[in-house]
Amino acid sequence: MLRPSLRKPDQMRPVSMETAVNKWAEGSCLIKFGGTQVLCTATVEFSQPTWKRMQKKTGGWVSAEYCMLPRANSTRRNHEAMQKDNRAVEISRLIGRSLRSVIDLEALGKHTITIDCDVIQGDGGTRCASVTGGFVALAMATRWLMDNGHITENPIIANIAAVSVGLWQNELILDLDFAEDCEAELDANFVMSEDGRFVEIQATGESHPFTSEQMSEMMQMASVACKKLIDLQNQVLE
Amino acid sequence: MLRPSLRKPDQMRPVSMETAVNKWAEGSCLIKFGGTQVLCTATVEFSQPTWKRMQKKTGGWVSAEYCMLPRANSTRRNHEAMQKDNRAVEISRLIGRSLRSVIDLEALGKHTITIDCDVIQGDGGTRCASVTGGFVALAMATRWLMDNGHITENPIIANIAAVSVGLWQNELILDLDFAEDCEAELDANFVMSEDGRFVEIQATGESHPFTSEQMSEMMQMASVACKKLIDLQNQVLE
Amino acid sequence: MLRPSLRKPDQMRPVSMETAVNKWAEGSCLIKFGGTQVLCTATVEFSQPTWKRMQKKTGGWVSAEYCMLPRANSTRRNHEAMQKDNRAVEISRLIGRSLRSVIDLEALGKHTITIDCDVIQGDGGTRCASVTGGFVALAMATRWLMDNGHITENPIIANIAAVSVGLWQNELILDLDFAEDCEAELDANFVMSEDGRFVEIQATGESHPFTSEQMSEMMQMASVACKKLIDLQNQVLE
Amino acid sequence: MLRPSLRKPDQMRPVSMETAVNKWAEGSCLIKFGGTQVLCTATVEFSQPTWKRMQKKTGGWVSAEYCMLPRANSTRRNHEAMQKDNRAVEISRLIGRSLRSVIDLEALGKHTITIDCDVIQGDGGTRCASVTGGFVALAMATRWLMDNGHITENPIIANIAAVSVGLWQNELILDLDFAEDCEAELDANFVMSEDGRFVEIQATGESHPFTSEQMSEMMQMASVACKKLIDLQNQVLE
Amino acid sequence: MLRPSLRKPDQMRPVSMETAVNKWAEGSCLIKFGGTQVLCTATVEFSQPTWKRMQKKTGGWVSAEYCMLPRANSTRRNHEAMQKDNRAVEISRLIGRSLRSVIDLEALGKHTITIDCDVIQGDGGTRCASVTGGFVALAMATRWLMDNGHITENPIIANIAAVSVGLWQNELILDLDFAEDCEAELDANFVMSEDGRFVEIQATGESHPFTSEQMSEMMQMASVACKKLIDLQNQVLE
Amino acid sequence: MLRPSLRKPDQMRPVSMETAVNKWAEGSCLIKFGGTQVLCTATVEFSQPTWKRMQKKTGGWVSAEYCMLPRANSTRRNHEAMQKDNRAVEISRLIGRSLRSVIDLEALGKHTITIDCDVIQGDGGTRCASVTGGFVALAMATRWLMDNGHITENPIIANIAAVSVGLWQNELILDLDFAEDCEAELDANFVMSEDGRFVEIQATGESHPFTSEQMSEMMQMASVACKKLIDLQNQVLE
Repeated sequence: MLRPSLRKPDQMRPVSMETAVNKWAEGSCLIKFGGTQVLCTATVEFSQPTWKRMQKKTGGWVSAEYCMLPRANSTRRNHEAMQKDNRAVEISRLIGRSLRSVIDLEALGKHTITIDCDVIQGDGGTRCASVTGGFVALAMATRWLMDNGHITENPIIANIAAVSVGLWQNELILDLDFAEDCEAELDANFVMSEDGRFVEIQATGESHPFTSEQMSEMMQMASVACKKLIDLQNQVLE
Repeated sequence: MLRPSLRKPDQMRPVSMETAVNKWAEGSCLIKFGGTQVLCTATVEFSQPTWKRMQKKTGGWVSAEYCMLPRANSTRRNHEAMQKDNRAVEISRLIGRSLRSVIDLEALGKHTITIDCDVIQGDGGTRCASVTGGFVALAMATRWLMDNGHITENPIIANIAAVSVGLWQNELILDLDFAEDCEAELDANFVMSEDGRFVEIQATGESHPFTSEQMSEMMQMASVACKKLIDLQNQVLE
Repeated sequence: MLRPSLRKPDQMRPVSMETAVNKWAEGSCLIKFGGTQVLCTATVEFSQPTWKRMQKKTGGWVSAEYCMLPRANSTRRNHEAMQKDNRAVEISRLIGRSLRSVIDLEALGKHTITIDCDVIQGDGGTRCASVTGGFVALAMATRWLMDNGHITENPIIANIAAVSVGLWQNELILDLDFAEDCEAELDANFVMSEDGRFVEIQATGESHPFTSEQMSEMMQMASVACKKLIDLQNQVLE
Repeated sequence: MLRPSLRKPDQMRPVSMETAVNKWAEGSCLIKFGGTQVLCTATVEFSQPTWKRMQKKTGGWVSAEYCMLPRANSTRRNHEAMQKDNRAVEISRLIGRSLRSVIDLEALGKHTITIDCDVIQGDGGTRCASVTGGFVALAMATRWLMDNGHITENPIIANIAAVSVGLWQNELILDLDFAEDCEAELDANFVMSEDGRFVEIQATGESHPFTSEQMSEMMQMASVACKKLIDLQNQVLE
Repeated sequence: MLRPSLRKPDQMRPVSMETAVNKWAEGSCLIKFGGTQVLCTATVEFSQPTWKRMQKKTGGWVSAEYCMLPRANSTRRNHEAMQKDNRAVEISRLIGRSLRSVIDLEALGKHTITIDCDVIQGDGGTRCASVTGGFVALAMATRWLMDNGHITENPIIANIAAVSVGLWQNELILDLDFAEDCEAELDANFVMSEDGRFVEIQATGESHPFTSEQMSEMMQMASVACKKLIDLQNQVLE
Repeated sequence: MLRPSLRKPDQMRPVSMETAVNKWAEGSCLIKFGGTQVLCTATVEFSQPTWKRMQKKTGGWVSAEYCMLPRANSTRRNHEAMQKDNRAVEISRLIGRSLRSVIDLEALGKHTITIDCDVIQGDGGTRCASVTGGFVALAMATRWLMDNGHITENPIIANIAAVSVGLWQNELILDLDFAEDCEAELDANFVMSEDGRFVEIQATGESHPFTSEQMSEMMQMASVACKKLIDLQNQVLE
């Protein structure tokens, strides 16, 4: 049976990553997963975040801010709604945790890197595109820190990438677009490190619980896709 | 090797659930996982939430609000911090999604049930205790709706319960308390339905990615524990 | 004529105070005035509040935060409403002023004590229960400071307690519950020190002005009740 | 012994009330207690407040908003501070309650009157001046409603006025100015109806508890002063 | 053709400026343009604003806060609306920029002057009255700084004043009142320095674009009026 | 003398406008003035804004929201700062007023069009680019309304465009980039309709007042540039 996008179950949408798209940011990447477009910028600050300085901790910090532009979706969201956007809060935290899992905060020194993921156009999978493109911006920013002599060692431990898997009509499908996401019974997001291990899994079967076996299959499907995304990251970062 | 709490790897803390602890609420449960104490209350409103009425949808709604009392933790959190508590937002959404997965919103009719999970004392696993105790409060509220003739059919499809599994010194351990959580390399939360399937999994290996095999083991360990919690729910609900 | 609760005019509800109910707080007390239950916790910080440090003043500070849990009442109050709760602001200020009236801020040293009064269940008289239970938590926290060698002198000058008096069907009644409060023509709250003098009186005759003589009678009735509450405080603090 | 202002213990500052000082408001009064200047305006709306309409209640409503201009005091308060001004919240509620105690909300019909008390210059006793001047603005607005045929019956039941009494060097003094207020051991505010009964008493002995006898004396002193203020109200309202 | 106010096209309303109207402020002026009344107060702080100190800049700062009292207009605006009042933000910025254009921030030393412009009664032209009266308050505050030996040099470079010009029935008219403003096709505000040059022009032809020639005529008309306002400023400042 | 960008005084930067860049919006335009990039989207709602419906007015409404992405500038602005961005408020109002000046709100029917101007990258002149690109998005949205039969008449009265003129080293220069803007003595923005008349002028000589003659020259320079922008608008709209 054909899925709504007419893709094969394990077929991703066309993916592109364009780097150095912002003249001000220390790292930037415009990533597209089909119709989903996210502008990821990395900002370096030469200090620790306040809470870390207060607690007299060593090392740096990485965090993320995810935001949808007002008309990134089929209906407009006004600025007031954007200010208390619980979903955005949850996704920002996911991106930040994921990126911190592959960075050596001690090697980063007393620097703070903020990754802004601004969704220019949303069409499903924005959090996965944000993690994947956010990593590229982060890697550029750490390279910038090294190139400019602010740190001596590469704090990046490994690449990470993320992809979604869903259950549609009892079949697992990869990288759901918006239309598919609306019809899916299950929505799971996988963040994987380049060694094939997972740093974050979020699986939600709001209308359709899932079994241990299905989880294993999803992890397998996500694993193949993330490897491809990591290859593409390495190409654009060269 | 002994885990910090001296419990066996797959041993939960003592669990208790006390119902009808609030004279005003349509359902209530004070749940304890060891030192963690969460007061769960269910509030019934005789209308749909605004957004659902606006969109002229049928059926009711269930949502949750998770909140820690100011001194639920080792350090006090002031009311201002509580007002933009991103972690609480994320957990509230998790509890709400989980509870909605086992309720037939059509059978609920045009009613809104809000589950407040107020953490009286926190000691690890507060979100899992909230889901488990929140279900009890929800079940009491739906029974109250039936007993008072507001709905005719039980909208509860199945019990759910939740438990955490962590990785500590390369060993999987169940139901982490606060001290263990601070030392753990991996923190995963499992929400399971009574048929043994999962409705939500959140696994975060911030400092320690995990493999597909480890995930399978964790699901197995969580599954046994959730079954016990569901048995206890059924006892107190009788 | 019998008052709604069937109590005698000058009869309080059963009162209980349970201490050390929170494993994290430096002082804590769960106080019950009949169906009213307030969890009072005291938090010690080893610094002055910002405003006092700025003005280079000596001594410490005591303040209070009063908050009702969402379902402490017959109708649920959502978290947004709790954030701009004018009544709670007024009560927090009353509790803080009252507690400061019996503490020697110089003897407290450069410490800040915050008393959180979280109403688990409300049934009338929550502000009076908060003052009375808040004093117990405060006294425990100052003892903790002395026991741990942070201060050398007991900064507590005297006990305080509080009780409400109302006018119902032209008769003065003590310690109104919620049902009585709704029907009362006058609502007055008295905070008394152990020497029998008053530190705060708030009397509001929104629908029924009162005379100087009635005020004298109310002060007399409150005085007897506060003495009993102070006796109970001393028992639980021993 | 002479009090700081050189006035006699029971001597008020010069009081003036100027009406019709705002071309837009349905009632207005610029009241001065010595250096304290408060602009009170009454705004009539031809509807009930939302909460009253929702609950399908009859009658109107009166409420008050107290606000200090940024430089009403010796130090400037910025607009941000004005937005979460707990003291202003407490005073607004006091003024509103007091005014409602002398108005027949049924006779007011489905109208809402809002009394804005904007402190142009503060020099002690602003809340008492606000109640006293606010009453004048309210009385003008109800007269305006009658003159324009919106209501047929005067909803004003009685005049009210307010004055402060303090304890300074163990002597009771009337109508404290700012300098006296800073030195006083006790600050009490009395709102009295024209029949000599009280509608609100707030007495705070933060640094100096007071006895039942002192309260009686203060009530007596306040009573004489409020009678004079009510006489003045009647003069300007004629 | 007569304009609504029956004034001649280039005729201003009666203008008055009263100084030293606030006992606390370092400078103050109550300015009236006909029915428009604005209380302007200047507050001196003995420090730079935070942002300037952070950037280690030299010199002082001047800023303004414009605010309408709740009943300054025909309809009441509640305090919530006042808190996110976009129009007030825009006007505050205009006043601040204008006043900074005639002050030598280096000569001001490390002082911050805040000009509060509180509209007691609005009747058109409030922003122009605020600039004009705000200058008087500012000049008094700088004189106060010199008189008290905090600075040695007068930082005021020149007087400024402001006036509005509108287009009504195709004729240019000066200093519009509220009724005229509602009917005007064009609303322009001119801030002029005493040397006849402009420091700010804001012209808005929302319903009626204007030509370069009309702009020249408006500048001419404004120029004459501003000169008169500056003469009046000098009289009251002597 | 060469200006910092090496352009001639009256030379604009390369301008491009790309339409239909957002799959969800009813009109969209990515406009570039050199390094300045603004994404303008138009959102149609099939209702009047609340305030217009309340006042029972006829016709539709057009408003604008201007927002800079966090890293649109050389330093990052966090989301909190974006929420109370006074400069953005002022610019949003300017764009909205300007666009309303060329639209027949009656012909628009009961529709609300919101123009979001999101600055992807800022390099001077963002408000002028926003007005110019916002007009394109607006024109597309009104065409969409006509093409889909929601309105019958084109509500667009005329094209508008905007450009900045500055004074640098006593010479007038057109279309300042960020580096030039920092050095300029005068910053003026001109919004012009296609008939050569102006709908909005904002001129600010914070450090350098300007004469009537300079204003005339600036209007001339802006006029030529706006005509070119309008030509380009017409090309991309065909």
